Amino acid sequence: MHTPATAESILEQALLQGRWTLFERLPAERRLAEELGISRATLRTALRTLVGRGILETRRNSGTFVRTLPCAPQTSGPDDSLQAMSVVMPPLLSAVAGSFAPSVMLTLERLLPSVGMALHSGDMRLLARHHLHFFSTLLQAVPNARLAQAGACTLPDERTLTRLLEGCSQARLEELFKHLARTLHGLRHADPQASVAAVTAYVSCLLQYREESR
Amino acid sequence: MHTPATAESILEQALLQGRWTLFERLPAERRLAEELGISRATLRTALRTLVGRGILETRRNSGTFVRTLPCAPQTSGPDDSLQAMSVVMPPLLSAVAGSFAPSVMLTLERLLPSVGMALHSGDMRLLARHHLHFFSTLLQAVPNARLAQAGACTLPDERTLTRLLEGCSQARLEELFKHLARTLHGLRHADPQASVAAVTAYVSCLLQYREESR
Repeated sequence: MHTPATAESILEQALLQGRWTLFERLPAERRLAEELGISRATLRTALRTLVGRGILETRRNSGTFVRTLPCAPQTSGPDDSLQAMSVVMPPLLSAVAGSFAPSVMLTLERLLPSVGMALHSGDMRLLARHHLHFFSTLLQAVPNARLAQAGACTLPDERTLTRLLEGCSQARLEELFKHLARTLHGLRHADPQASVAAVTAYVSCLLQYREESR
Repeated sequence: MHTPATAESILEQALLQGRWTLFERLPAERRLAEELGISRATLRTALRTLVGRGILETRRNSGTFVRTLPCAPQTSGPDDSLQAMSVVMPPLLSAVAGSFAPSVMLTLERLLPSVGMALHSGDMRLLARHHLHFFSTLLQAVPNARLAQAGACTLPDERTLTRLLEGCSQARLEELFKHLARTLHGLRHADPQASVAAVTAYVSCLLQYREESR
């Protein structure tokens, strides 16, 4: 017997795999429940949750429609976060660099020593976590929630970044650290272009290291 | 009594509201269940679903961690999809314009007459849907899944776009149509710069119309 949570995952997977396109109407409840092999009550609970999450939309007298593409990790298609990050992060930073509150700079400044310590400890998993924490702190301070989400979609996951950092020499890890420090420096001194250049260099370095290690 | 689906929504809302940051460990199950006022069994089911969705991560002997920021519509903070779209879509298109399959162009070409018909029918909801369908078709063809997700986060929802189009004169609606047609024309003739310029003009127009109608 499927639970509503399982039914919800099944529906979400189907959406991610493109079974229905944006704004398409889902099949009638009875048919959909049969297709998925679940009870109509379970299906209805799952549909309500997906409506609540803003993924589906119910229109009176006309059915249930796909409202947005779910933004969970996709299972199909290559998933190159570094390339996505290189496309999205520089223009994102360029657009919002002037609007960060001083408290954000303070948080980022406190993060940098942790990055430095992890670098010298040789714990690449911890280092990857601190690198990602740097970017997620930046993104959480982006005043436009949609833009922050778009940026968050492009952050590599911890495992991917850890593996990449494990292949880097100490000199290269220090270069990455410098780019993070320069990103912050540009933000602190109201020099968005310097931040954009630094973040571009950061992602380019990672892409180059990955290329060389293949 | 909360269902696992409700518990999942509660957890997701807490994540969206920044209750725990990226990579932070969630409280122990017993404490978390108490805080949320749900049974441990229900909590465990909800946690498993969130792990399955890639939002949380379980590490052996150390607990449950935040793996990615959920990418559902946020409830806090301004949510300006048009500004986000103006930042993300041009560089996205610039990065991938050369890699679309001919079948995508065909789908987009078939869409354009529908846009034209909706324009002349005066049904702005239908027109908004076709505009969004144009961009979602583009995004579904982006070969990098993360980049496609980032782009999808910036699409305005149907209601917002409908309201905006309702305030536009016929001449402006035709201008928007031309920008969509030029975006496609650039893609078909392997002229990424023309597509990027057209999509930039498209979003700029919408931003300008919104500014004027305030």
